[in-house]
Amino acid sequence: MSKYWNIKTQGIEPYVAGEQPKDGQRVIKLNTNENPYAPSPAIKEVLKNFDIDTLRLYPDTNSTVFIDAVASVYGVSRENVFAGNGSDEVLAICWQALFEKMGNTDKKVLMPDISYSFYPVYSSFYDVAPEKVPLREGFTVDPDDYCGKECAGIAIANPNAPTSKAITLDEIEKILKANPDVPVIIDEAYAAYAEDYESAATLIGKYKNLVVVRTMSKSYGLAGIRLGYAIADEEIITGLRKVRDSFNSYPVDRLTQRIGAAAMLDRENFEKNRLAVIKTRKFITEELRKVGFDIPDSSANFIFAKPPKSIDAETLYKNLKAKGILVRYFNKPVINEYLRITIGTDEEMKEFLEAVLKEI
Amino acid sequence: MSKYWNIKTQGIEPYVAGEQPKDGQRVIKLNTNENPYAPSPAIKEVLKNFDIDTLRLYPDTNSTVFIDAVASVYGVSRENVFAGNGSDEVLAICWQALFEKMGNTDKKVLMPDISYSFYPVYSSFYDVAPEKVPLREGFTVDPDDYCGKECAGIAIANPNAPTSKAITLDEIEKILKANPDVPVIIDEAYAAYAEDYESAATLIGKYKNLVVVRTMSKSYGLAGIRLGYAIADEEIITGLRKVRDSFNSYPVDRLTQRIGAAAMLDRENFEKNRLAVIKTRKFITEELRKVGFDIPDSSANFIFAKPPKSIDAETLYKNLKAKGILVRYFNKPVINEYLRITIGTDEEMKEFLEAVLKEI
Repeated sequence: MSKYWNIKTQGIEPYVAGEQPKDGQRVIKLNTNENPYAPSPAIKEVLKNFDIDTLRLYPDTNSTVFIDAVASVYGVSRENVFAGNGSDEVLAICWQALFEKMGNTDKKVLMPDISYSFYPVYSSFYDVAPEKVPLREGFTVDPDDYCGKECAGIAIANPNAPTSKAITLDEIEKILKANPDVPVIIDEAYAAYAEDYESAATLIGKYKNLVVVRTMSKSYGLAGIRLGYAIADEEIITGLRKVRDSFNSYPVDRLTQRIGAAAMLDRENFEKNRLAVIKTRKFITEELRKVGFDIPDSSANFIFAKPPKSIDAETLYKNLKAKGILVRYFNKPVINEYLRITIGTDEEMKEFLEAVLKEI
Repeated sequence: MSKYWNIKTQGIEPYVAGEQPKDGQRVIKLNTNENPYAPSPAIKEVLKNFDIDTLRLYPDTNSTVFIDAVASVYGVSRENVFAGNGSDEVLAICWQALFEKMGNTDKKVLMPDISYSFYPVYSSFYDVAPEKVPLREGFTVDPDDYCGKECAGIAIANPNAPTSKAITLDEIEKILKANPDVPVIIDEAYAAYAEDYESAATLIGKYKNLVVVRTMSKSYGLAGIRLGYAIADEEIITGLRKVRDSFNSYPVDRLTQRIGAAAMLDRENFEKNRLAVIKTRKFITEELRKVGFDIPDSSANFIFAKPPKSIDAETLYKNLKAKGILVRYFNKPVINEYLRITIGTDEEMKEFLEAVLKEI
């Protein structure tokens, strides 16, 4: 505690990200949902051809080269796309710009009680009151729980994290229709790994209250460049830009804009890596279920797995860590019985499986 | 206006950055205080040797490779350095983390009435009450105006912008001593261009209330990578990190961390380009004064110049723009009599001078 921190800073409980090994440290890293495969080889060309003299100049504030790539892939206009320094920044700006603050409203923002743990942090930090909606049996988000309630907005991760379960586009439409007057954020960080799911971005144009947030970190293998985006009606995008310009007018640097555009347009690399992860996910899910793990069907690049009775989640997490295998353990009620395990390469998952079999 | 914006977003007036020409457009760009010289050639090696496969992984949250470079140059410890996505983000996080909000205090944050125009935007956006302290004769910051007043903190750009004038390290110490209980931000975005000024970072260790903010955008020629830093006592840095982790845990990407470190450690390129700008500044200041411009002595990479009576600042700005020469004009009382002119290369300033001579 410091007398130079304001009252807010003294009271906040920040988000705690998964641990990162030092560069060069040999670990099997299955704890922060990174992509096990290299990003688009087109990035090599971007770096090779990049004129470093242009770094003298501020970047384009709207990241036009990148949002144009997004717009072309999603079939929307560049006025429907907002780019930020990772989807964490994009989400934070949504919270700041869209959800009404406590004091101005008695209404709350609906969100699943088990979801991305940054949501409650944003809510507290930006003075937005969250209403945590309990998941149903089997970690299911029930759209009816988000309909017919007075609220200041809705935020749902789809697929949800750390549970890995997705709702359908029809279910999302039901929520959008029932809440025409408030912003509804659908956070699709992991949506590329849902087998039969089209992005809710296909509904832009039909619903002015919809904000789809996506990231280059997972399915494009680019957690290291910090690039995320929102797709929404132009009015909402304009609001996000106003808030950005009250904080930091240039959130995305010149290199990142080019790298992001190249990666976005390389659909082949995206598809190949996405399908490889889905295939490995099936393999590891089946193998773990055979030996007694309880695992909901995953639509993400991770599985949410409850170990058999012979070992609890925390012990398994610690024992694996001692062997250089990192998975994510959340020390919170209900989910502390599970581990969130990122899908790595086949080789990594086989090594992981071998280690697990020795523990249970 | 949109019903999906919250009340805050509806009311904000964002910062308006200087206009950016499209890539490839031929202009003489003297409007956003960028460096006319290329950044360190060491950056080429960084890009050439960069393993793009590592972009799969999240970056180090504290930007250790970069803050270690900063620490070594300034002779401080890595616990004294905070890195962010441009000094704009660093300043925004200082405002959020340190200055007490209205409602919690009746005290205000002292800042010069003419200064970086993002300060009032941050103040309004983060609910901090600013007290705008009038500059003295000749756009001078008088340290006595910041002593002996109850306040929630102090923010001073040194050299100040857009006036280009600096105060001395002794004057800063006077302010620090008079305000031991509140954070004092010294924003040194342009300090590399002050001829006889040592950074206030040399006072870290002596004053726990001091926060020095600097940027790679200007004197390192890296506006395009978005990298800034704060140097302060460890307690203050810890507070900034808490706020960062409530917003976006990874503000600086992997490439930017490496590029920033390489540029920071290339003292030769830094010195050479800094001295070249100072030399050109002398030349253009003298030439413009000869023809009747009123120009305070500049300690920055720009001059603040009032045209002779034959033409007003706004007309000169517009006429130069029509010729493809961009300078900055502020449509605000007092400073609307002046233009802020970035120091370019000798060739650019000669071309600029020729154009000006035809207008006055």
